[in-house]
Parts: sequence; structure tokens; C-alpha cells
Amino acid sequence: MNTNTIYLDNAATTPIAPSVKEAMIKAMEVFGNPSSTHGYGRESRILIEQTRKKIAKELNCEPGEIFFTSGGTEADNLAIQSSVRDLGVERIITLPTEHHAVVYPAEHLRDRFGVELVFLKVNEFGDIDLNELEALLTSSSKKTLVSVMHGNNEIGNLMDIDAIGDICKTHEALFHSDTVQTIGHFKIDLAVTKIDFITCSAHKFNGPKGVGFLFARGGVKIHPQNFGGGQERNMRSGTENIIGIAGLGAAFELVCSDREEEETRLNGFKQDLIEGIRKVRSDAMFNGRSADIGKSLYTVLSVALPQDGKNDMLLFQFDMKGIAISGGSACNSGAQKGSHVIESIRPDVPTQNLRISTGRYTTTAEIQSFLEAFAELTQQ
Amino acid sequence: MNTNTIYLDNAATTPIAPSVKEAMIKAMEVFGNPSSTHGYGRESRILIEQTRKKIAKELNCEPGEIFFTSGGTEADNLAIQSSVRDLGVERIITLPTEHHAVVYPAEHLRDRFGVELVFLKVNEFGDIDLNELEALLTSSSKKTLVSVMHGNNEIGNLMDIDAIGDICKTHEALFHSDTVQTIGHFKIDLAVTKIDFITCSAHKFNGPKGVGFLFARGGVKIHPQNFGGGQERNMRSGTENIIGIAGLGAAFELVCSDREEEETRLNGFKQDLIEGIRKVRSDAMFNGRSADIGKSLYTVLSVALPQDGKNDMLLFQFDMKGIAISGGSACNSGAQKGSHVIESIRPDVPTQNLRISTGRYTTTAEIQSFLEAFAELTQQ
Repeated sequence: MNTNTIYLDNAATTPIAPSVKEAMIKAMEVFGNPSSTHGYGRESRILIEQTRKKIAKELNCEPGEIFFTSGGTEADNLAIQSSVRDLGVERIITLPTEHHAVVYPAEHLRDRFGVELVFLKVNEFGDIDLNELEALLTSSSKKTLVSVMHGNNEIGNLMDIDAIGDICKTHEALFHSDTVQTIGHFKIDLAVTKIDFITCSAHKFNGPKGVGFLFARGGVKIHPQNFGGGQERNMRSGTENIIGIAGLGAAFELVCSDREEEETRLNGFKQDLIEGIRKVRSDAMFNGRSADIGKSLYTVLSVALPQDGKNDMLLFQFDMKGIAISGGSACNSGAQKGSHVIESIRPDVPTQNLRISTGRYTTTAEIQSFLEAFAELTQQ
Repeated sequence: MNTNTIYLDNAATTPIAPSVKEAMIKAMEVFGNPSSTHGYGRESRILIEQTRKKIAKELNCEPGEIFFTSGGTEADNLAIQSSVRDLGVERIITLPTEHHAVVYPAEHLRDRFGVELVFLKVNEFGDIDLNELEALLTSSSKKTLVSVMHGNNEIGNLMDIDAIGDICKTHEALFHSDTVQTIGHFKIDLAVTKIDFITCSAHKFNGPKGVGFLFARGGVKIHPQNFGGGQERNMRSGTENIIGIAGLGAAFELVCSDREEEETRLNGFKQDLIEGIRKVRSDAMFNGRSADIGKSLYTVLSVALPQDGKNDMLLFQFDMKGIAISGGSACNSGAQKGSHVIESIRPDVPTQNLRISTGRYTTTAEIQSFLEAFAELTQQ
């Protein structure tokens, strides 16, 4: 049961926007099987292909490079697993701070198929050293996939995918980026950025869960994980999720329509949060680059308080006050494990971490309410 | 653009029912990440688990045996591919008349991983010989997966999954059935039927596309195809498609609520179609068992007319008259290939095939309109 009223966990997922709801309800009347050649089928096919075109236009790529999936996890897995299965990749270079949808398939490919797996070093801020990447790519002739996420879901760090893309291109490595937290929220121009695979999950920008896409650069020929009817140009069998795709299209349109305004507005909230938190707790730290405006997701602020034996129930206390925030990624919260991301950057100093993530419907009043609750719960 | 008004292609997909639409719109307000521990997350978790329980109760299995997927294709692939990857299966016995979501992963496992693949013989009616299955299972000690679909999507044949399950159990073979055309429409009692895997796609019974489930018998331990957040008890990573799952739940409830009445009503239409077609064309044949009421899906009638050089545009002509029917499965219609199912049962006599498939919203008037158009287009 939901007893919360203030939602500050938009990096985990976001509410459906009214325009998305409307597009999905409209799409409920479009029910033909897109593979059918009759009128009902053509109507569905048109809806899907128009959505694909709209997305491709915004990203400056070809519609045929966009493959709809059941979400970001499937898209990341498709890119990473297919690189090994179909593209001769023998080595994967990635980060310990990646999402599990990247780390786990990479570890699976290492453990099961003997792929070499290299984790780049990350410093205490979550930064990587591009020289290390370049040296690794120079040191071996093994066909390599580099997988570096664009914006970290826990600590907010933005990575320079243009620079990484250039390095990968020079060394003929494939480059995949988990862009689930940034796509739509930040401008990505695929005619400029030298990247082979990026991924999308609609529910990160006020679209529905269960739908997303993989961009796979033309010429990259990968095979499906699921075999069947040969949908999505034989890359992804299964009758297309029309209602979800319609929602994805509307959400993508919305997030791209006002991203600069939203960036300014939400960075303002971030500034308020940083100042408010510091006022209450001068010992508060901010994880990664999340407090560096311009170098991090404008939606994510990750706060670390020294563990004092009292604040281990802090998330629960916020929940009791009707405020939804998280410790790290939602995917881990059920498992009650620590965050692998924060452990990677700061293994020796256990902290109580709070991820506050704002979104389209966050208001000034909510930020103030959070800060009041923060003062009440953590003031020493 | 949809210029059709009469929809007789319900085996390809079905329109969303009003109660499903309502459940989905309601679920649009439930947006928390089900993995989040706060109130928003718990609300989503409850919705998903209540749906899982409802489905499990109807099928007489444990909720923990139901794994939500992006549809039937993913569910079939998960069962078949994981059987080889995780359960030591070295041989797959299936039919040439299976859906491509079964035949193609099986062929992939043969071609890529050396799994032995045996196709049971099917006769001109699409029947199999259970003695052949039994002999095959007796002849080898290889760990075997038997995959036989419950109701054929093209020719409508119903298979005796209880008898096949008993044989598999005796010989310690795993048994998977693609039940995409039958689940909900027919009573399946998983406490009685000895089966390890069955599959579901919501859009075959007035639910949304892009969501379904795999039933995997407790104790069968398989691993995910996609790695990540560990959702669905670590079987199927990726944030759950809440709106889709809510729609699936409502659709499943609906199809189970009146299946006996619908069976009677739609078998009545089938009888009318058979008689009406025979009156116009005494040379019409019916593929497989589709004209045998009680031995076939009550939703599917597959008609074969001798090719006469004039009727190869018949589907198009029906489309022009506003009537949506298909030649075989929707999945193949784009590819303009012949039906592998009908080729399997009748390789030597090419025919013009029409699949007429009825559903919840089919009316007597539509059946009459179809028969009038059939007379006009095919009368000799």
C-alpha cells in the first residue's frame, strides 16, 4: 500500500505523463498484429514505424537502427551478449560502477564462455582515466567491447561518451553505453558520437515500464536472443508491444521537448538540496560527482552520512513520513545488499547513503518538505 | 491505415476488452518501481503479486511458478533454451508444425550447440503418433525435452497434453507445451497435467501485447537469458511491466470467467462457417483437425481451396472488402512465405489457405458477411 505522498526516487522510475497516458489509451484501439497484412495489421505497423522514425530523427540515426525491446535490461543484454556471440568479441572492458544489467551479463560471458573481462579503475569520485582505457586497447589485439554508462544511476556521474567513442573508434573496439539514465534527458547526436550501441527504457522519462529500445549502429549484424516470428528485422522476435511503444514515443517526445528547461529547473533543486543538507549536517558528503552540477545527472543527488548506529533506519523513517527516496538503485533495495557502486568508489568508509532523485513533477514545496524531514531525522 | 471493419483474425491477436482497458488505465497510477521498498514501490509489488496469485490459483499451481515475460515468444525461448543451458537437455523432440517460437530456438540449439533435434512425424491431419514418441524416449538415455504445442495456431489441432505428460513423466523427459493459443480458453489444471513448462501471451485473449508468462514447475531450476536486477526471482531481470501485467491479469480473469459459454458460441460459428463454405465450394477442404469440433481450437477454422490461378489474391480481396482474415500465422504474413505448418502436413498439394479465427467480439452478422463475401469471391 502506498502511504507516501512525496516522490523523490525518479532515477528508479517515474510516473506516467498525461500525454503518455493519452497516447497509450489511444493505442489501445490499435490492436491488429503488426505482422498481419490486412487493414488492422497495417494500422499497427504504421503506429510502430512512425514511432521508430520519430525516435531516429531525434537521435539523428536511421529508423532501421532502432530495435524495440522490453526495456533497458533486455537492450543492454542484447548488445553485450550478441557482441560475443555474433561479433567475435573476446574481451569486455567496463566499470565496476556499471548497472547490474551490464556487469552481470559481462560476468556471465566471462564465467561461461571465457571472455576476458577487465574493469577499469574508478577513483573515489567515480572518475575513470581515459589513458588507462587507451593503454588497454593498445596492449591487446583481442576484439574488444567497451561498455561505459553515460550517466550513473546511483552517483550521477556523467561520462564523456564522445571522447570514449573516439578512442574506441581509433582502436577498432566496439562501444556500448548504457544510456538508460540519460537518453532523452540529454542531447545525444548519433551522427557525431562514435558509438555502436545505446539503450533506452521508457519508464525513466515518464513513459511506461516494460518497453525500451536498443540502438545498434547500421552494419553491426547481431542475432536475436529469442527466436520466433522474426519481428524487429529478425533481431527481436515476439509480437510488438504496441501500447508500450506508443507510450515510449509520447514520453520520448515530451522529454526531448523541454530538456534544457528541465535541466535548469532540476539543477536548481539540486543546488537547494546541497545547501539545505549542508546546513543541517556539515559532515554530509556527496557520492561521486553528484554534487558537481554539469558533471552529473541533473536528476540525481547522492548523499552520504557517516554511520552512527542510529541512521541505519533512515530510509524507513523517510518512508514513514511519506517521502520516497532510496539508498542506491531500486534493483538492489529488495536484496538489502549494499550498493556495489558506492563500495567500488569508497570501499573502506561505510556510510548511510540517500539517493534523492527529482523529476518532471517535483515541486519546490516537495524539496522543502524533504529538507525539513531531513533536519528532523538527522540533526545532531 | 485500417479500412477493415470485420475482424476474423483472432488467432493472430485480439482487441483489448473494456475491463482490461480499465485495469490498465488504473495501473497507470501505480508507478513505483516494484523493487523499491518505499510506499510507491510496495504498491506496485502488491499489484504484481496479486496478479501472479490470481493466475496461479486458476491454473492450480504455486505463484512462485509463474514468471512474467514480455510475451509468448520470450517464454517459449526461456523454457527451451534454458533446458539445454541449465538442465542438461541433449535432445529435443518436437513437431514440424510447432510455432516458430519453438522450432527456431530448437534449430538454433541444434546448429550452435549440437543438441539432437528430432521432429515427430505428423500425418495429413496434423496428428502425431504417441507410440513414436514413446519409442523415441525408450530408445535413448539422452536427457530429453519434449515440446508439443497444446493448440495449433494455424490448423487448430488440439494435442492431448495429459497423455504426452504421462509418457514424458514415465521416461523422465522434460515436457514443454506452447499453450499460447489455449491458455485461458481451455481449462488447464497443473496439479493434474504432468508438465514442466507452459507459456502465455496476453494478447491472445483480449489482453495487451508485450506481456505474458512462463509457468516453470517448482524444482526446475533455470537461469535467466537477461541478467540484471534479478527480478522475477532472478529468472527474468528488468523492471516489471506493471501496466501490462495488470492488463494480463484482467484479461486472464475475463477469459476464464465464461470459457464454456464462449466455446459453445464460437463452435456454433465454426459450424455455420463449415456449412456455409461447403455450400459455396463443395471442393473446399479444411486443414488439420480444424473442422473437427472438440478436437480443435474453437476459435480457428482453416480452409483450403484448390489453387486455380485466380484465388492467389483472395486474402487481398477480402481485405479490400473490409474483412480481416489470414493465410496462416500473422508472423509469416509479412514474409510472404508459405505456411510451414500446412507444408508439413500436405507437402504435395498446394492450396490457397484461409484462416478464419473468431473471438469474444465476433457476431453472427460478421459470420454472415464473411460467408457472403466468400460466395462472391470464390463461387465458380
